[in-house]
Order: sequence, then structure tokens, then C-alpha cells
Amino acid sequence: MDRDRSAQRIERDIETLAGPEYTLTGEAIRRYAYTPVYRNTLDYFTHELEAIGFEVSEDAVGTLFARNRPPGEPVFGVGSHCDSNRNGGKYDGTMGVVTALEVCRLNAELGLDLPLQLISFLEEEGSGFGQMLLGSRIIAQRVTEEDLRETFRSIDDGRSYWECAAGAGYAPERWRECSHVLDDLTGWIEMHIEQARVLQDTGKRIGLVTAIAGYVHADVVVHGRGDHAGATPMDFRLDPTLPLAETVVELERLARAAGQGTVGTVGEIEVDPGIINAIAARLRFSLDIRGPVDDAYRGVAREIAAFAEEAARARGMTAEYAERQALPATPMDERILAELETAAQATGEPYVRMHSGAAHDTMCVADRVPTAMVFVPCKDGISHHPDEDADPADAALAAEIIVNAIQALARA
Amino acid sequence: MDRDRSAQRIERDIETLAGPEYTLTGEAIRRYAYTPVYRNTLDYFTHELEAIGFEVSEDAVGTLFARNRPPGEPVFGVGSHCDSNRNGGKYDGTMGVVTALEVCRLNAELGLDLPLQLISFLEEEGSGFGQMLLGSRIIAQRVTEEDLRETFRSIDDGRSYWECAAGAGYAPERWRECSHVLDDLTGWIEMHIEQARVLQDTGKRIGLVTAIAGYVHADVVVHGRGDHAGATPMDFRLDPTLPLAETVVELERLARAAGQGTVGTVGEIEVDPGIINAIAARLRFSLDIRGPVDDAYRGVAREIAAFAEEAARARGMTAEYAERQALPATPMDERILAELETAAQATGEPYVRMHSGAAHDTMCVADRVPTAMVFVPCKDGISHHPDEDADPADAALAAEIIVNAIQALARA
Repeated sequence: MDRDRSAQRIERDIETLAGPEYTLTGEAIRRYAYTPVYRNTLDYFTHELEAIGFEVSEDAVGTLFARNRPPGEPVFGVGSHCDSNRNGGKYDGTMGVVTALEVCRLNAELGLDLPLQLISFLEEEGSGFGQMLLGSRIIAQRVTEEDLRETFRSIDDGRSYWECAAGAGYAPERWRECSHVLDDLTGWIEMHIEQARVLQDTGKRIGLVTAIAGYVHADVVVHGRGDHAGATPMDFRLDPTLPLAETVVELERLARAAGQGTVGTVGEIEVDPGIINAIAARLRFSLDIRGPVDDAYRGVAREIAAFAEEAARARGMTAEYAERQALPATPMDERILAELETAAQATGEPYVRMHSGAAHDTMCVADRVPTAMVFVPCKDGISHHPDEDADPADAALAAEIIVNAIQALARA
Repeated sequence: MDRDRSAQRIERDIETLAGPEYTLTGEAIRRYAYTPVYRNTLDYFTHELEAIGFEVSEDAVGTLFARNRPPGEPVFGVGSHCDSNRNGGKYDGTMGVVTALEVCRLNAELGLDLPLQLISFLEEEGSGFGQMLLGSRIIAQRVTEEDLRETFRSIDDGRSYWECAAGAGYAPERWRECSHVLDDLTGWIEMHIEQARVLQDTGKRIGLVTAIAGYVHADVVVHGRGDHAGATPMDFRLDPTLPLAETVVELERLARAAGQGTVGTVGEIEVDPGIINAIAARLRFSLDIRGPVDDAYRGVAREIAAFAEEAARARGMTAEYAERQALPATPMDERILAELETAAQATGEPYVRMHSGAAHDTMCVADRVPTAMVFVPCKDGISHHPDEDADPADAALAAEIIVNAIQALARA
């Protein structure tokens, strides 16, 4: 395979899709479902896939899928998503679809005739409706009709998801049929930028994902007493910043002690009233606790909840822990992983087995189809930001590894 | 003295000034300079003071002062401010002016003929222009013409302070003459609600203020790295919530260790970007460090600045400490304090010497005039809130103590 040529094609696709027709702003890549720029992006992939003999369709809500075999025949799935974070970069999602397209091109060019289906999932980032993995959750039937008709609403204008999808010419009332997109898949590989700095900082070009981390998202509210910061002696205070502080330090300790890829983060801190000369009356902070080993990160979540409540109690306050959302870890398929590893080894390029800390559409595929993911480095781990940067040569390397792995699986 | 009658008069004044003509909203007391409701409030005091033979004037920007002696003759000053916090209660400030009015009434009624001047300072709360102690700072010449002409602007409509004052019929171009308001004062006593719970929780009815705390207001900015909360292993993080947490815990330790009334508070925490699944790139928190002993609280400010910078450095980050504002502690006059204490003892009611953690107009009087302050309890320490509550009987007790102290000082 001519990796340089692949890299050139991948770069051309990426740069084209960063042009003014494909983003709502020049400051960043801003692209989400049912906008003209998203339509243009699907049209671009449709045109490129038809050029290599694929039949391109969209499901009832706008997930694009394209096959080189008739419906009902088994196919191997490749793809990702081509929507972006609201202030996103060129690579998150899009480079995965472009690399899947390159896999399809190589298959045609090299006459391999592997049976393939490319999928570009809808609304992975939640930029349109604030709902991550929306398209793949619809396919996995992990939403309700109530969600789609009422709960999920456009960030831009508050209209329901249902109304927006219908307004764009789709048939949201047939959302249950979207599950058929996965019907013929014998396997699935998604390529994505890593969105962290492990590959860069350890000098690897390829990450072979062993599992996608599960997570617990939660909030802790600490009830203090909103006294005057000057007039209230230290012994008369119920200051909720102290249980916060103790919990932040303990979370780091617990996550490190749990090991096995467990991480814990306080990303949101909301202080009420939040003025310099007032002790906070109330304070809320978020917890994001993840890892590839369910027992490990869930243990941290349980322990930090108890710790925060006790830290507040010890100072005469109360704290409440409330879970927002949780998803178990998703192990990848060992057989696909083994073939990817064989193909990676054959290139002689540095690779590593790793887990994915970030969530991906592949989580919604894995229930029904053997799945795997391939990561490529992104510069300084920056993602969801216009400065996001990745190397088309790494994506070309990933395309070669994926083609070879699918070929080996087809032979077996 | 008939304390019950004083309490009734004080209660009537307070309740009248909580009526719809005196507040911009029915939800709270909202009253600030150059509004019709503030004008009505000054008119109420003018009417009540003229009824007991006082000559009432306003200075070039609207500070009300009233005397029972001609200009040039020595007088003893009493008063406070009658503007309120934007969502304030009935007592903060207003009860001090009302109690000063009661001192003037008692003086007339009992035929004491003490030479008195009542002052109601303008814009103590900063509700109109975001500038605390504005009227008393103008009197103390602790502002510049540039501040008044350009920098200080209406919270409501952005017009300059200068334009607003002129529009209300005042003569801001003569602001330097405002200093004359203090010219004839031989002493000054301000009564105010405590705004904390020390008096309530220790069962005292009167606080005799020994000093008004000085303070340092500062910010610390910690520069972290805004990585993905799921994808970034614990060892690859530069998470600014950890230096924050360590600094919050250390601030409490330092303030307690410093003692002598030193307090320290983190009231504002701003996390950027502040989303559940992102390690913060940057975090800012405020420091409010106060106390009646300059060396003590300033030492805490120095040590916590160094600690925060070192806590960030120890984790591979940087932090910057920047002072916003600082004001030294203001000791009260020991001679006035001694007479207040004698008068308080004579009542047989429980009192305590204490410092004021909050700032007051009296800070701007103390440079030129021997000053003191008297506190009365407020329920649960709640202030700057519609739930603010205080007992007119305590204010009546304060009025009696102040009259007796001024009489003793006049005799000496």
C-alpha cells in the first residue's frame, strides 16, 4: 500500500471539510445535524463513496451508511462521526470517517473486494441537542420516544429534536428502524484521534483500544451558611469550600490508589453566591470518574461520595451526592484486536495497547457487533478546540492496519 | 429614659421606611442614590429632624447632615447610611440613621441640649455605582475627579457618576467641598447591625467596636492544562483544582494560627472551561483576608500567596497572586469607647468589646475625628438579604448608651 498517497488523500479530505461550506464559523469547525454545512459534509462523503462504487443511504434520522454489497449480505463496518464540537477542530470524528473512506478506497484500488459498510454517525458531540452519542444511541435504541419528541431540544432555538429532524426531511417516527443499520455487520472498527497525550508523550503512532472506559458522572452539593466574610470569626463558620477542598485532594488519592486506568476529575465548581466578601451558602461540584475496570472506578465513586458527606458532616454541614449518569466499560473484541496487532506489528511502527478514556459511538455498536478501535496521536492532546492537530500520515498508517486486519478476519 | 417609647419610635421609623414609597421593589429593600425612593427617604429624615429643631442640609453630592447648632460651632456626630444593598433588608444602615435620629429626639425631649450633628452617608453599599463607602470616601477625599467623572458608572444604565449626580440636581464639580461635613465634629459614633452572629450566639445585646478590620482582597489564578477528563491518565495531568484545594485548607490553618480576629475566605471560584468532562485549563479564586491587627492578617496574605504559588509549582503548574485592594485596620478612639462602656455597664445589659469584620463609613471618618461604633445583634447574622432582622429594643438600648456617652464626653 502506498501510505504517502493515502496520507495525501486523507489530508485533502480533511482540508476540504474544513472549508467555509462545511463549518458555521471561520473561527473553529462548528458542524452539527440538520444544518446546511452538515448536509454538505454528508454530500461530500456520498460523492466520494459513489465514485468507488458504494451505494449510499441515510437512515430515518440521518445516519449515513454506504455499502459495496446489497442489503442482507454480511459486511465489515468502518467509520466514525463527522459532526464536531461547537468550537471544534478538523480531526475529532471527521478524520475517522475520512480514514474509513480511505479503507474503502484502498479496498477498491487494490482489488481486495472486501465486503464493507461505512457508517457516519449523527450527533456524536451533542452540539445540536446537548446529547452525546445521540445517533448511535438511537441505533442502539438507548433513547425513548419521549426523549426524541420532547426532552431533547435544539441548543439554538429550543425546538424539539423531533421537529428539527422532520424539518430537515427525515422521518423521526421511524426511529426504531434505525437499529437495522447494524444488521449485517460481522465486525466494526472505528478510528479516532486519541484526545489525550499518551501516544505523543510515549512516542507511539498507533493505539489499539482494549476497552472504552465506563464512567460515573455525579454532583456533590455542600450546604454551608452564607455569612459575611469579614464579620464572621473562623469558629462561627460553615464554609462549604473546605469539604470541597478535602474532597478534591481525596479524589486524587483514591483514583491513584485504584490504578488500572482509573481517573477522577472535578471539572465544575459553582459557588453560591460567589462573591469575594461572602462565605458561600452552597457549593456544587461535579465528579467525572472513569476507567476501563468497572469495579475500580465504581469503588472510587462510592468512596468519594461517602468521603464528601463525611467531610461536610465533620464540619457541621451536610453534603449530598447525586449520580447524573453512568455507563459501564465496553471491552473490545479480542479477535479483532489480535488481527489489528498483527497488522500493526507488520508495519514496524510503534504502537501500544491502551484503553480509551473518552466515550465513542463504538460503545453503542459493541452490544451487537464485535468491535475495536484504533487511535492516532493528536498534538499535545488538544481536542474540542480549533487548535486540534493530527497527522494524516498516522491516519494513513491506521488505514493500512485496518485494511490488513479486515482482510485477515475475512480469510479466517 | 423610656426605652420602650424609644423602641416604638425606632420601629415606626424602620417600618415606615420599608414601605412602597421607600424601596424600588416589594421583594426586598432596594434603595440607592438619586432614585425617587432615596429622595423620599432623605425627605423623611429631614421632616423628622426639622420637627425637633434641627437645620437640615445636603452637601454637594447628596450627603444629608443636620445640626442643632450653627455652622462653625463644635458638634458631636451620630449617624450611618440609609441606602441599602440591592436585595437588602430593613436594618442595614437605616437602623443606624434611625437610632441617631432617636439620639437627637432624646436629647431634645430630655432637655440635654447636647450639640449634635446627624449624618446620613451616601452610597455605602455601592448599589448605585458598585462603589462601597462612596459618599464617605468623597468626604474623606479618597476618590479622584477621574473616578467620579469617568470610572464610576451607574449599574443600571452605565451613565457616569458625575452625570447621575448632576441630573439629580447636585453639584459634583464641588465634590472637594464635601470634606467640610466633618469640620465641626468633636467625635463620632455610628450604630449598625452586626451582620454576623457573634452577639446573638454569645447572648449579648450590645457590641462596642474596638477596631474596624483592615483587609486584603486578592485573586489567585492557577494555570493548568485543559485536557480530556476521561482520556488523560492521572500522571499526565496539570489539574488546577488541586492547588486550589490545598490553598483553601492552608488558608483556614493560617487564619486560625494567626488568631487576633484574623479571618480568611475563598468566596469566588471560577473554573475555565468549567465542564464536567474537562480538566480545567485555568482556575481563579478570590481571597478575602481581614482582621483588626494589620500585621496578623497581612502575614496570612503574604504566606497564602507564597503557598499557592508553591502548591502550583510542586505540581508543574504556575499560579499568580494579585492584590485587588487593601485597607488598613481602623482603631476606634479609646476615650469614646471607655464612655460607651461605662454607659453600657450602667444599663446592666450584656455587652462585649469586639472588632468589626465588616467595613463601615466610620473608616472614612476616623482619620479626622475620634470615632467609635456600637453594634446590635441581627438574627442569625443574616444581612444583605430581605430576611435581615433586628430588634428595635436593642437599638433603643444603643440610643440610651450613646446619649449617655456623649453627655459624659461633653462634661469632661
